[in-house]
Amino acid sequence: MVKKIKEEKLKLGVCYYPEHWPKELWEDDFRRMKELGITYVRMGEFAWTVFEPKEGTFSFELFDQAVDKAHEFGLEVIMGTPTATPPAWLTYKYPDTLNVDQDGISFQHGARRHYNYNSENYRRLSSIIVTEMAKHYRDHPGIVGWQIDNELNCEVDVFYSEADHIAFRKWVKEKYETLDNLNQAWGTVFWNQTYTSWEQVYLTRKTVSNSPNPHHMLDEKRFISDSAISYVKLQADILREYAPNKWVTTNGMFKHLDNHKMTNELLDFFAYDSYPNFGRVIEDNSKKPLRDRKWSWNLSVVRSISPNFAIFEQQSGPGGWVTRIEQPTPKPGQLRLWTYQSIAHGADLVMYFRWRTATKGTEIYWHGINDYHNLPNRRVEEVEQVSKEIHQISEKIAGSSYQAEVALITSYDNEWDGEFDKWVGPYISKSKDAWFKAFQYKHVPVDALYVNQETTLEELKNYKVLVYPHAAIVTKEQAELFTRYVEQGGKVIFGCRSGYKDETGQTYMKAFPGYLAELAGVTVEEFTRVAPFEKVPRLKFKDSNDIEAIDFNEVLQPHGDVEVLSTFTHAHFEGKPALVRRNVGSGSCYYFGGVFNLELASLLIDEVGLNNYQDQFELPEEIELSIRHKDGNDYTFLLNYSEQPQEILLKKEYRDALSGKRVTNKITLKPYDVLVLEP
Amino acid sequence: MVKKIKEEKLKLGVCYYPEHWPKELWEDDFRRMKELGITYVRMGEFAWTVFEPKEGTFSFELFDQAVDKAHEFGLEVIMGTPTATPPAWLTYKYPDTLNVDQDGISFQHGARRHYNYNSENYRRLSSIIVTEMAKHYRDHPGIVGWQIDNELNCEVDVFYSEADHIAFRKWVKEKYETLDNLNQAWGTVFWNQTYTSWEQVYLTRKTVSNSPNPHHMLDEKRFISDSAISYVKLQADILREYAPNKWVTTNGMFKHLDNHKMTNELLDFFAYDSYPNFGRVIEDNSKKPLRDRKWSWNLSVVRSISPNFAIFEQQSGPGGWVTRIEQPTPKPGQLRLWTYQSIAHGADLVMYFRWRTATKGTEIYWHGINDYHNLPNRRVEEVEQVSKEIHQISEKIAGSSYQAEVALITSYDNEWDGEFDKWVGPYISKSKDAWFKAFQYKHVPVDALYVNQETTLEELKNYKVLVYPHAAIVTKEQAELFTRYVEQGGKVIFGCRSGYKDETGQTYMKAFPGYLAELAGVTVEEFTRVAPFEKVPRLKFKDSNDIEAIDFNEVLQPHGDVEVLSTFTHAHFEGKPALVRRNVGSGSCYYFGGVFNLELASLLIDEVGLNNYQDQFELPEEIELSIRHKDGNDYTFLLNYSEQPQEILLKKEYRDALSGKRVTNKITLKPYDVLVLEP
Amino acid sequence: MVKKIKEEKLKLGVCYYPEHWPKELWEDDFRRMKELGITYVRMGEFAWTVFEPKEGTFSFELFDQAVDKAHEFGLEVIMGTPTATPPAWLTYKYPDTLNVDQDGISFQHGARRHYNYNSENYRRLSSIIVTEMAKHYRDHPGIVGWQIDNELNCEVDVFYSEADHIAFRKWVKEKYETLDNLNQAWGTVFWNQTYTSWEQVYLTRKTVSNSPNPHHMLDEKRFISDSAISYVKLQADILREYAPNKWVTTNGMFKHLDNHKMTNELLDFFAYDSYPNFGRVIEDNSKKPLRDRKWSWNLSVVRSISPNFAIFEQQSGPGGWVTRIEQPTPKPGQLRLWTYQSIAHGADLVMYFRWRTATKGTEIYWHGINDYHNLPNRRVEEVEQVSKEIHQISEKIAGSSYQAEVALITSYDNEWDGEFDKWVGPYISKSKDAWFKAFQYKHVPVDALYVNQETTLEELKNYKVLVYPHAAIVTKEQAELFTRYVEQGGKVIFGCRSGYKDETGQTYMKAFPGYLAELAGVTVEEFTRVAPFEKVPRLKFKDSNDIEAIDFNEVLQPHGDVEVLSTFTHAHFEGKPALVRRNVGSGSCYYFGGVFNLELASLLIDEVGLNNYQDQFELPEEIELSIRHKDGNDYTFLLNYSEQPQEILLKKEYRDALSGKRVTNKITLKPYDVLVLEP
Repeated sequence: MVKKIKEEKLKLGVCYYPEHWPKELWEDDFRRMKELGITYVRMGEFAWTVFEPKEGTFSFELFDQAVDKAHEFGLEVIMGTPTATPPAWLTYKYPDTLNVDQDGISFQHGARRHYNYNSENYRRLSSIIVTEMAKHYRDHPGIVGWQIDNELNCEVDVFYSEADHIAFRKWVKEKYETLDNLNQAWGTVFWNQTYTSWEQVYLTRKTVSNSPNPHHMLDEKRFISDSAISYVKLQADILREYAPNKWVTTNGMFKHLDNHKMTNELLDFFAYDSYPNFGRVIEDNSKKPLRDRKWSWNLSVVRSISPNFAIFEQQSGPGGWVTRIEQPTPKPGQLRLWTYQSIAHGADLVMYFRWRTATKGTEIYWHGINDYHNLPNRRVEEVEQVSKEIHQISEKIAGSSYQAEVALITSYDNEWDGEFDKWVGPYISKSKDAWFKAFQYKHVPVDALYVNQETTLEELKNYKVLVYPHAAIVTKEQAELFTRYVEQGGKVIFGCRSGYKDETGQTYMKAFPGYLAELAGVTVEEFTRVAPFEKVPRLKFKDSNDIEAIDFNEVLQPHGDVEVLSTFTHAHFEGKPALVRRNVGSGSCYYFGGVFNLELASLLIDEVGLNNYQDQFELPEEIELSIRHKDGNDYTFLLNYSEQPQEILLKKEYRDALSGKRVTNKITLKPYDVLVLEP
Repeated sequence: MVKKIKEEKLKLGVCYYPEHWPKELWEDDFRRMKELGITYVRMGEFAWTVFEPKEGTFSFELFDQAVDKAHEFGLEVIMGTPTATPPAWLTYKYPDTLNVDQDGISFQHGARRHYNYNSENYRRLSSIIVTEMAKHYRDHPGIVGWQIDNELNCEVDVFYSEADHIAFRKWVKEKYETLDNLNQAWGTVFWNQTYTSWEQVYLTRKTVSNSPNPHHMLDEKRFISDSAISYVKLQADILREYAPNKWVTTNGMFKHLDNHKMTNELLDFFAYDSYPNFGRVIEDNSKKPLRDRKWSWNLSVVRSISPNFAIFEQQSGPGGWVTRIEQPTPKPGQLRLWTYQSIAHGADLVMYFRWRTATKGTEIYWHGINDYHNLPNRRVEEVEQVSKEIHQISEKIAGSSYQAEVALITSYDNEWDGEFDKWVGPYISKSKDAWFKAFQYKHVPVDALYVNQETTLEELKNYKVLVYPHAAIVTKEQAELFTRYVEQGGKVIFGCRSGYKDETGQTYMKAFPGYLAELAGVTVEEFTRVAPFEKVPRLKFKDSNDIEAIDFNEVLQPHGDVEVLSTFTHAHFEGKPALVRRNVGSGSCYYFGGVFNLELASLLIDEVGLNNYQDQFELPEEIELSIRHKDGNDYTFLLNYSEQPQEILLKKEYRDALSGKRVTNKITLKPYDVLVLEP
Repeated sequence: MVKKIKEEKLKLGVCYYPEHWPKELWEDDFRRMKELGITYVRMGEFAWTVFEPKEGTFSFELFDQAVDKAHEFGLEVIMGTPTATPPAWLTYKYPDTLNVDQDGISFQHGARRHYNYNSENYRRLSSIIVTEMAKHYRDHPGIVGWQIDNELNCEVDVFYSEADHIAFRKWVKEKYETLDNLNQAWGTVFWNQTYTSWEQVYLTRKTVSNSPNPHHMLDEKRFISDSAISYVKLQADILREYAPNKWVTTNGMFKHLDNHKMTNELLDFFAYDSYPNFGRVIEDNSKKPLRDRKWSWNLSVVRSISPNFAIFEQQSGPGGWVTRIEQPTPKPGQLRLWTYQSIAHGADLVMYFRWRTATKGTEIYWHGINDYHNLPNRRVEEVEQVSKEIHQISEKIAGSSYQAEVALITSYDNEWDGEFDKWVGPYISKSKDAWFKAFQYKHVPVDALYVNQETTLEELKNYKVLVYPHAAIVTKEQAELFTRYVEQGGKVIFGCRSGYKDETGQTYMKAFPGYLAELAGVTVEEFTRVAPFEKVPRLKFKDSNDIEAIDFNEVLQPHGDVEVLSTFTHAHFEGKPALVRRNVGSGSCYYFGGVFNLELASLLIDEVGLNNYQDQFELPEEIELSIRHKDGNDYTFLLNYSEQPQEILLKKEYRDALSGKRVTNKITLKPYDVLVLEP
């Protein structure tokens, strides 16, 4: 069952912390929200001590008043369970609830997310507070749904408390049943790591050269994901039981968590926290960096979890903690632009973080739409503009589906394994970035697709083209699935380092690319990392310029009916095949013995013939094109991420959905401006 | 009461470690000191085990002999209490005396300053040794005064032992009385940090993302300062009681210590350790770095504590530990230059560190005036030259006062809060550097001024102009004080990020610059950090060239009778006010919405019309000008920090106080040379 | 007695892990080895749990089968004792066996080398397993020798377990007998570190500024070396007793271990693990870096331990762990080149690491000669070529001796002391690199020579010239030894920072260069580190261009009959002597007051007139020349490290020992190609 939000209209919301503010402000705040066109207010998620000032004593007065007051103004409340920030009394009394680093040193009270998922005390106390809250608010008409915890695995995504070690031991016992199986899976015969009793098994700990067993490490990440999911299940089950008929979700997308599984098994839909302003401060040394536009990829991943989703935290100002994250202020238009970026990618609810900037604590520089001073400002005006505009498209867009005929593939196994593996992980993220950038600049809408052992041929067949840049872990079954896909007309593109690992992260005793060799029609004759102080080989093409063959070179040996599209040059393997195409059934498989860069990805997009809407538009690279489709109509979002006006050419006539005017031919999009076109 | 050293003549001294050297050397060493014109010898400060070889057993023989021998040669001894380096037997027996890092890992014997101020054992044992020493030496005619401990808070300036946690809990209880007050002050409602019992309160500990509560952090620094002061008081009280009528001081100026308060409450005067050679090895990427001349700022801060002060350690050679600090050798003249730098800024006693370079231990590369080999060398010659020269000016300069009509303001609150706050702290030090550099290069003598809630209007009125670059924490009372100052004719200059925080480090719910808004005549319409990968806005002036508007831009909204001196350009807030002046009463307030750089500070120095002695001198930037005044006469120090000769023009006739010659018109100052002029 | 391998022919070997692979593969593997010309197979060194699956239960079945099978194919087995990787059951039951970091945090199971040498439990359990193995295999005809443990001190070379602290306390007691002696040696009077009871003495622990006592630190390294040697002795004694008449050795050369002493006292010969491919990935910012050719220095050091030695691990593919070390693949020819590099420097046995790349664990990217897929590949072909070729020279080369008339000197004391001392250590390695590079590019074969208090005049007199760049620690006796050497015709070259420290690492109370001053005919008048932000002084010569005087400048004061070869320029000590020669007896002593660079080292090579075989060859810099001599014949190895063909000129006629052809005049050496010439 596809998990997605079911709104009939586009909705706006804000995050609000009634416990922070004098009660005198609430009424004015809620009134102004309503005037701005806000529907939803999120609250409660950092207020455990307000709800339970001491163990077993509960107090709902403050939030009852806040919820009532919000409801009075017609706002609907999303209530957060407050488990992201345990009370001081809790961690003081139950230090086993704290998270611990790999060296065995405990995190302490003072920031957030310092608990672990497996402490029995924490699970017990979480159950109690969630149960009390669920019971208390089950019938409140002002409450529309629940957010479980807040940003799971944010800031810290590894866990080494005693409780985690114990739970991991249990987890591996269930997974492997015998020590023999575990020893096989982790290849413990190497370096004499063989376990001879379960008691010897821990999560990874401090090792010489910080180099624990990599297969163990991969299972550790699977375990962390399962732990988080199990903790969400603990809460979700309580909420479903005691407060039925309300949304249940959680927010944020962080590492070491299979969000697809979590959403499918436990939630109503997935909610993301979107902060594109990070793109303006994070170092990106690649060519033509996407900056804030890179968040379109994150939103694509979110869409792969929930085709229609919510943004629970939409950036609404400069962001920063006192000690870190030094973001500039969004420029005029950027706040609006980022809102449409979310909507264009599938968000039917956008909730701004936060109503007003906090005057205390670590996040006094994480600005809300209102400033400390609470006076009118430019950001509130921009939200107001958005609020008014989306009325024009609200019912058309809500529930519509994003249109893409190509998907960029990854898998949790490869991400988690690659994170620790310098011989493939960095290539995965580099190629993903290059491909996504090429799709953006060539105006080809693209989906993200996570594959695993359950992935079906039908899922693949949603796409004309699949790109799986570095499919290191590929099982026999997956190889067969891709083969069926190609035979039935699909096109698939693989890069180097594909197919050489099994699900434990061990290598096959096979020529690369393992089970994919037959489909690709090649094996790897030899390979090398590009040496850091030597010249970089290049790729030679018949009809286009040379391209650098960065990072890793696989020299391909074709078997049978394979067409060589490019050969290496400036290398001792001069003239040997680097990129090949094999036609199989009615489709084709491309294999490239390397890491993708922008030039090559662009060239391959042309090669496979993807729709980039050139029949409808002529667009500069600076413009993102997204299409949401509903009831037979395409709604085309054109977003200008640049600080310069951009000229675009409409080859047909459209209706500007926001202004209602008919538009055609040349149009200039102002800096950070947005155009939504309907037929 | 102003705490200052009271010498009738300029004096020289050296640091000497009799315990390091064969007794056979002492006599010769003391004779040579005397011959060099040395008056004072400091000793004893790292010799606890010599004085107390085992707990409760005391031995004064070695130092008695040394003090007697020094006294025999007419030298006067400053005795150090030896608590900076606890004996091995002490930390072994009482591990609670050790300092501990934030993760809970103890420092151990093997370096120095590994103790904590709050251990009851350490305080008890310190009392005993100091009492024994005070009693023993109280009547010794050769002992002139005491140095308490050595370089408090040097190397490590945070403390997390169990004793510190306990003392902190007591400290906050006394400060806040109720948990409610503490929770308010620390804004614990954010991220659910509310404390419900005193036992839950610790100094900051290991947190996720290394981000403890910032208000807690600010109090932690206040507590560290109070702890150090309380430890100094413990010793000072004993010395005053058992060895009255001697100087009591301590040496060095390090972080997290309110040296003003400590000096005012406990000491006779402040003593600084001056190592300008650090300026030759510390990275400084600013334009035209001051290098060793930057120490003139440190000396100005020292002067703000004690108008006439002592240098207890004046650099006298290349410096370095075995493992760190890689300083070159002072060039011929630099040692002399740095001595005059100290004197020019208010030092009436300069003590060289150290007599002879240590042949053992961590500091074998921290060179004294004598080398290991003890043979004649260039550094001793230079000291001899200084010694002879200052006889010429000794009585004139001693007790004289430094002349400045402008002060550069800071406060411990803003320094300590800024240290942890990336949104203001880095600007404080950047602007301070820019302003001081501008004052130096324009030959405008400047004082340092530390303000707090006790600062009086009279203190401010000592100056024609005040510059307070980023007064983040400003109370209502302080804002009023500055208003009075301006009304009565003062000029004050503020930069961005002023007035937005209260004394807890929380932000006001007010438009920036908070309580300063009325005085400044502006509020901040919007602001932004300068984005790292985007172009930097600029400042436009009517009559001068554009200047970069670095780091942070506040767009100003004038209220009433305000003159706009500069507007922004190359930004989306093009043309909006950046720098304004408001005339109030007979004075003016300047507000700049940004971080100062050298160009802007220079421009503003001209704008406010400060005396740069152009009626008397024409000086190249390479020359520092300082004036000490006594009995109606100005003594002008001109110091050449450059390796090139510098030509200067004297517009009047003066007496070269060192040579006794009359001088006027053009003069060439040799590299590193010094000129002291009197009328 | 010189410890060297005694082979009558050059031999090849491989490392093999029977426990990793299905038994079905063994037979084929051993057959293929034999076909390749392999003689030796190393196995067993990471298989403790295979031999002892639980404490006290032993199992030899798997290795019996493997050894038998190898023997069946005529291979000879080198058996490794498996103590480099303790079993999980062992460290779980005896956590005192684990190594601990300086902060007191234990390393844990999961990588390798996480044990300590001083744990009584580890020593006991090691004795048991080694005894069992020795007894079991003592009479096996297939076993030729033993490797003790594996790569001692690799990855981690410091040890801070409780057992180490205790053993250190015992070690210092034995060394110093009284606390007084210890306090003297460590200069504990400085910073009041005096020990008043043995219990207070630990290995260095966490100190403020990470700066423990440097003399303590030097002894710590001596202790670590002694601990490792004592652990090797424990095993060697058992092997000698229970399995006599077999080789006993260990492999690898890592820090904090006196390999000369260990080999002389305990082993039959020294075995090195040679991985020149590291040279292609390690940052080297010096001019004309040697890259893989730098390993020729390592091989020279190995030769100083064993004139004829074994390579137990010769790199045979790209190398890397999952998490670190990112090496490219050796280019065609490099594997062969590196094999000849080993042989040219004295290896009579070369064993490739490993037979086949591991498919599991941390080293899946540390490639063997065979790939995962086990199909034919280029690397196996190259080994085959080597195997065939060396038959031609096998008996001529085995047992021959490397020819050098100059030695580059170092000492363990100076290496260990320098490692912690930023005022000399970095110069030691910089000058060593510069000198070795100059020798390489000028085709002057050079030996490494480690000196200590036992070094004899005869050892020095093996060489015409000695270069001891920064002999910081030099005793009176050593100074006299060098004087005798020079008097009797030797030439010796010293650089700055010579002779200023005694064996404790304390400085002499003497003018630099201490006891060397008389021999050198100079003292140091003054010195300085080169300031980082100021201009670098230069060296002026009569007949050649200026050279930069990098890093450290000692201004020399000549005494008596000394010839000044170079003076400083661009410094305040302009024109003062920088480099001098003093003729003493029939030899000369050169003293340079600085750190050597390539230009200066090259110039001095010409100055002292070393044989660079220009009468026989004209060689480009890219070619290494090495000569092995046996029975009156020179065997000249010419190795081309570059990717370009190199033209060489043979001025006489030679026999190409590998092809058997006569060669003379111009010859072109292909990229990475090798030429072995005999008369």
